[in-house]
Amino acid sequence: MEVPNKSIPLISLFAAWLLLASPTLVSASAKRSNYIVHMDKSAMPKIFSNSHHWYSSIVDSVKFASDVLVKKGEHHDNTPPEIIYTYEHVIDGFSVVLSEDELAVLKNTPGFLSSYKDQTVTIDTTYTPKFLSLNPSSGLWKASELGKGVIVGVIDSGVWPESSSFKDDGMPEIPDRWKGICESGQEFNSSLCNKKLIGVRYFNKGLKSEDPGLNISMDSGRDTRGHGTHTSSTVAGNYVENVSLFGYAPGTARGIAPRAHIAIYKVLWDEGRQASDVLAGMDQAVADGVDVISISMGFDILKLYEDPISIASFGAMEKGVFVSSSAGNDRNHNGNLHNGIPWVLTVGAGTTDRWLSGTLTLGNGRTIPGWSMFPANAFVRNFPLIYNKKISSCDSVEALSKSTPTGIIICEDIGNYTTQIGTFLNSDVHIPAAIFISEEHAIFEQSQFFAPSVVISSKDAPYVIDYAQHSPNATVTIEFQQTIFGANPNPSPAVAAYNLRGPSRSYPYILKPDLIAPGTLILAAWIPHQVTGAIWDVGLTSDYYMLSGTSMACPHASGIAALLKSVHPEWSPAAIRSAMITTANPTDNSRSPIKDIGENYEAATPLAMGAGHVDPNSALDPGLIYDVSVQDYINLLCSMNFTRNQILTITRSPNLDCSHASDDLNYPSFIVFNSLGNSNKAFIKTFERSVTNVGEGATRYKASVVAPKGSVVTVYPEELIFEQRDETQRYTLSIHYMGKEDGVVTFGSLVWEEQNGKHNVRSPIVVSHTVPMW
Amino acid sequence: MEVPNKSIPLISLFAAWLLLASPTLVSASAKRSNYIVHMDKSAMPKIFSNSHHWYSSIVDSVKFASDVLVKKGEHHDNTPPEIIYTYEHVIDGFSVVLSEDELAVLKNTPGFLSSYKDQTVTIDTTYTPKFLSLNPSSGLWKASELGKGVIVGVIDSGVWPESSSFKDDGMPEIPDRWKGICESGQEFNSSLCNKKLIGVRYFNKGLKSEDPGLNISMDSGRDTRGHGTHTSSTVAGNYVENVSLFGYAPGTARGIAPRAHIAIYKVLWDEGRQASDVLAGMDQAVADGVDVISISMGFDILKLYEDPISIASFGAMEKGVFVSSSAGNDRNHNGNLHNGIPWVLTVGAGTTDRWLSGTLTLGNGRTIPGWSMFPANAFVRNFPLIYNKKISSCDSVEALSKSTPTGIIICEDIGNYTTQIGTFLNSDVHIPAAIFISEEHAIFEQSQFFAPSVVISSKDAPYVIDYAQHSPNATVTIEFQQTIFGANPNPSPAVAAYNLRGPSRSYPYILKPDLIAPGTLILAAWIPHQVTGAIWDVGLTSDYYMLSGTSMACPHASGIAALLKSVHPEWSPAAIRSAMITTANPTDNSRSPIKDIGENYEAATPLAMGAGHVDPNSALDPGLIYDVSVQDYINLLCSMNFTRNQILTITRSPNLDCSHASDDLNYPSFIVFNSLGNSNKAFIKTFERSVTNVGEGATRYKASVVAPKGSVVTVYPEELIFEQRDETQRYTLSIHYMGKEDGVVTFGSLVWEEQNGKHNVRSPIVVSHTVPMW
Repeated sequence: MEVPNKSIPLISLFAAWLLLASPTLVSASAKRSNYIVHMDKSAMPKIFSNSHHWYSSIVDSVKFASDVLVKKGEHHDNTPPEIIYTYEHVIDGFSVVLSEDELAVLKNTPGFLSSYKDQTVTIDTTYTPKFLSLNPSSGLWKASELGKGVIVGVIDSGVWPESSSFKDDGMPEIPDRWKGICESGQEFNSSLCNKKLIGVRYFNKGLKSEDPGLNISMDSGRDTRGHGTHTSSTVAGNYVENVSLFGYAPGTARGIAPRAHIAIYKVLWDEGRQASDVLAGMDQAVADGVDVISISMGFDILKLYEDPISIASFGAMEKGVFVSSSAGNDRNHNGNLHNGIPWVLTVGAGTTDRWLSGTLTLGNGRTIPGWSMFPANAFVRNFPLIYNKKISSCDSVEALSKSTPTGIIICEDIGNYTTQIGTFLNSDVHIPAAIFISEEHAIFEQSQFFAPSVVISSKDAPYVIDYAQHSPNATVTIEFQQTIFGANPNPSPAVAAYNLRGPSRSYPYILKPDLIAPGTLILAAWIPHQVTGAIWDVGLTSDYYMLSGTSMACPHASGIAALLKSVHPEWSPAAIRSAMITTANPTDNSRSPIKDIGENYEAATPLAMGAGHVDPNSALDPGLIYDVSVQDYINLLCSMNFTRNQILTITRSPNLDCSHASDDLNYPSFIVFNSLGNSNKAFIKTFERSVTNVGEGATRYKASVVAPKGSVVTVYPEELIFEQRDETQRYTLSIHYMGKEDGVVTFGSLVWEEQNGKHNVRSPIVVSHTVPMW
Repeated sequence: MEVPNKSIPLISLFAAWLLLASPTLVSASAKRSNYIVHMDKSAMPKIFSNSHHWYSSIVDSVKFASDVLVKKGEHHDNTPPEIIYTYEHVIDGFSVVLSEDELAVLKNTPGFLSSYKDQTVTIDTTYTPKFLSLNPSSGLWKASELGKGVIVGVIDSGVWPESSSFKDDGMPEIPDRWKGICESGQEFNSSLCNKKLIGVRYFNKGLKSEDPGLNISMDSGRDTRGHGTHTSSTVAGNYVENVSLFGYAPGTARGIAPRAHIAIYKVLWDEGRQASDVLAGMDQAVADGVDVISISMGFDILKLYEDPISIASFGAMEKGVFVSSSAGNDRNHNGNLHNGIPWVLTVGAGTTDRWLSGTLTLGNGRTIPGWSMFPANAFVRNFPLIYNKKISSCDSVEALSKSTPTGIIICEDIGNYTTQIGTFLNSDVHIPAAIFISEEHAIFEQSQFFAPSVVISSKDAPYVIDYAQHSPNATVTIEFQQTIFGANPNPSPAVAAYNLRGPSRSYPYILKPDLIAPGTLILAAWIPHQVTGAIWDVGLTSDYYMLSGTSMACPHASGIAALLKSVHPEWSPAAIRSAMITTANPTDNSRSPIKDIGENYEAATPLAMGAGHVDPNSALDPGLIYDVSVQDYINLLCSMNFTRNQILTITRSPNLDCSHASDDLNYPSFIVFNSLGNSNKAFIKTFERSVTNVGEGATRYKASVVAPKGSVVTVYPEELIFEQRDETQRYTLSIHYMGKEDGVVTFGSLVWEEQNGKHNVRSPIVVSHTVPMW
């Protein structure tokens, strides 16, 4: 029989995710496209009072040329080209709607550096403060006064300002330096801002230009997706008591920097997400005076000089703004990580030790902790337990309907939990509950339990099946909504399977990701009008929601950067990043190397986790810092195979000085490649590094090296002696690859161990297989 | 097709209620029955050291006689009769298992007063402190320090000791006078008691004697029904933050006397509930030293000298223990109220102004607050709104299945919501949500919303139907889990429909009930292993649950009595009751007379609400008190048509003095009957009363009378002048019934209004139709 409407709410449940994964729907009838144009401001004729004036004049010229083209009948769209945004803070240039012909005209304009088509960005929360050992009475939270007064700009899908996480109880006054505004718009009154949510702006001119007929369904900073509300509350949400997702993970929600201010830049829209809007948001964030930018999205397959996050981050970095970004998800679908940009922090995602449990108690008293996120206290008490071979694959609606089971069914592991749970939804047989056997890691990252059900491991399964088969009156009781800390049967943190991995195809010679942070099943604020769970076909909503992804890991790192910025306002973004990388922890809570769930729980390589799991309290006091100046990054760019204009697109330096081009950036990690065309070829690669003593005063460090298998690593000198604080010392590290491990990733580490001191300054060393660059 | 298991969880959901409504299952094979035997202790021969010794000897004699009978072949059960309980504190006597023959033997024993068969008791929480205007910084809560140090004994189904409501944070030490224990038993360790839950005992010997083969499934003070956990947390539960029932009525739960101690006497069992056990529990509570007994149950159709609550309450009253009881529910099924006992407080149930809402927002923006307790945030957002005449009666599974609606259906009022919601459960068509039109008050008292659904009023319905019919794309959004205070469209409090009404058939000449207290949809602690809601066929459990009944009203009054006892330890139970009655409020929050939901929102008579809704802060300082001595009650009993032994069964007074028999008890209310056999007969009835000044000092009061329609009321003197505090003055009140209102209930009031003072001492006056006594 027909079951006409059963799946409607679930379809809407998954719609948001499909939308994120699918390409933007852009009207194919648009003749023109958005272009982002970078200009050399030093070429601006003196008659122009400002750059906008100059750019407008250029576009007018293009318009004139366009008119000529129209007269010639070669061009059918007679609306003139229009400037979408003028960018002034992180790039010099503008975005504009152009036909290809018009672009050709524009390219001949003096001062033109480069241009590229607008792109679609890929988007990639709250026991974690405790998991990260953040404590108000010690360490980084105490030293930073919970991030008091720092401003974090979140480039995302906007915000749900009414969420309790954005109340400003206990917040300090808004800093005088703040230049942002609370932009009003659809269903968004500017009075919605407060001392926590100090700024909201929205950017969709790029999107509207791509498709002038487009109707923006929520034309304001209000979040209709939830993603921005989630990330911004993760980075700096205020304290909210008694929060949970349908009873799971209950506790007090708060961001990593609960006393930091939040500024929202909405660039992600239900209707699309354009690079020109992202650029405009980042440009404005820097102009407004944010200290940290948190951006949980990335552009795949773009070169550094065409990737708006790369370009805008450079300008932000120049102004001392720290940029934290996500490495990207969906490993099966995509290639290597995005945001592999030398001047940002690139964050992967790890798990926590929290276990969301549906606990079985068999009739014989034995208790088995299963996994469940079923969104209610379902009543399953002393119900019959059924193991029936005819239906135990749980993938046949017919078999289920025929057997009409009247108890709790055990479903065997067929390697496809989604099909199995779907079978119950499509069947008219509503069993009281089901027990699934599975090890699929996706279930433990983001899974729907719309029937009362529990997933048990294949380790526990034989006992349960045996009991069901051989006890005359086998029964089972299930307690849902159990949250057990430290009960994750696998050690944590572990690298989440979905993480995109390094090396960075934008620039493989800097190890990316930099580190991992908590990203799996993060509970954070959510928008009230979206389905976040279901009981059978009844979709449910909640104010807090658990998501998994590097999008959730990024704001954790952003929050920690904000805390560090509060304690060390004089530190450069590179210094903050260095502190986070060199103190990251490569071991899990079983004191073994962190495992990689995506590699069948093998030890994670630095290509999956960078230096390891971020450790905020250690980052507060790293001992040594690898600092990087703006010119160092320019020297790096000069070493890349870029044109002058491509470099200027990023750097904008009127006087580009490439006299010290160097591919050896002072980065706190080391990566070389073992299969550079000729296989089995040994080589030696030497790195030069300088470290600055940010500890108490005179001290000495000794190098402790674990060489990657098949390589010899030498450090010179092996001891660094500092007479005073802020003193810098240099050293070299050479990797002698012996030519025998081609195509395999081997890794080790250098630790500068403080003698008679507590600091260990660790850098990962990787010998990687090669990847083609984007 | 078959839908085999759909209703199983719902059956278990309602099982508890069915159990309460159905008679106890007693094995029919038991030859003997339980009897409760009252003895005249003054007849005890001096050779016995104590009453237990004497009673045992009596039973041994009966056993001997029984043996003789067995020999004669007249008796087939050869186990000897056995004492179940010896009662020493509130009655003199014992309960025993006897055959009728054995009973006949026992009746001939010197000192025998009376005996009766064991009976089955009928059982009749937490925004209400605020609704009752209880405030920690003023009034009764402040004066009583939240009931600090008072001990409340709850005679009920036991307790779930792990509930947060029974934590002892902030509790004072256990009073030295406390003599109770924490009895261990099945799944109950005596260490579970604390400074909040100071005593737990359980009584089921009576039940076991009725059926010696009976297996008690939880043989301890642990509550397996929830009723006792609910009532005891209502009377004196500790503060518990962030409590709700599936998101409804969220807030901080706490009892009426949050700093009072709780002692639990479990007498209600899954397997039955016997008078002998109730008597034993009350007897022990008095012996242990409780100040207040809260008993949310009653015996129907029992005379005062056979009703164990009547009998035990008399003993409690003699010892200064206040007894608060429930008037009884299920008006359709039963007759008049139970616990209509002159020496207890009899409490009816009222509503609050809290509205549990599923709020509709139509596509045109119009908002309609419906009623819903659907236990989740169901996602219903801009779904099509359907009004289809073919299915809008919503009582046909076939019609629903045929039409396969794909939106929100409007269901018309067919006067049977239960059938309609059941149709959805039995249909395979899972509509996203339904809108019911109904005014059935049962829905607003205790209803299941296992489909996403909302009940709207017939007043709002035409607009919604018109919109659905005439708007081309009619849509609706529903927000569940809305709790709106003050939004009840009907004024509150109102008398709940389910209340059993007066007059009392035990003794109609004292007005009962005495007053009403909040009883509808009271949120209080619950046991975790019971279904308290459902989404389709998925039963759900919760730690706090909303119940409606006089069982919920009683502990509110008990808590207020505990608060008053704390402030006025010298007041007799009658004085405390008088303070509560004379300050009760007969008007609702619209300043109109309280309405009776069970009488189609007509003004409630005192037979429904007694003096009105309890007002704790006013009861703190009532101005005048109607006190009653033990001898006054004996004088009343002497006026009843009881034998000496029947009276002694209640009073136990060794020297029964009936020289001042009087049916005119000094009670703060007045009731006469207008159809005493001869219709249309006028009469005059005069009452004598004395009031004691408990105000500040010298004062004067003037009588203000509103006479019942058809009667003339005179008060003499019309002014009472008090020279000092604690002075007593007498007055008479005469009701001259004119003989024209037979069979109708008319009512008015006497208010003693303090001159130049704030006190108004109000008594209801009722001219009622007559009822036959039990």
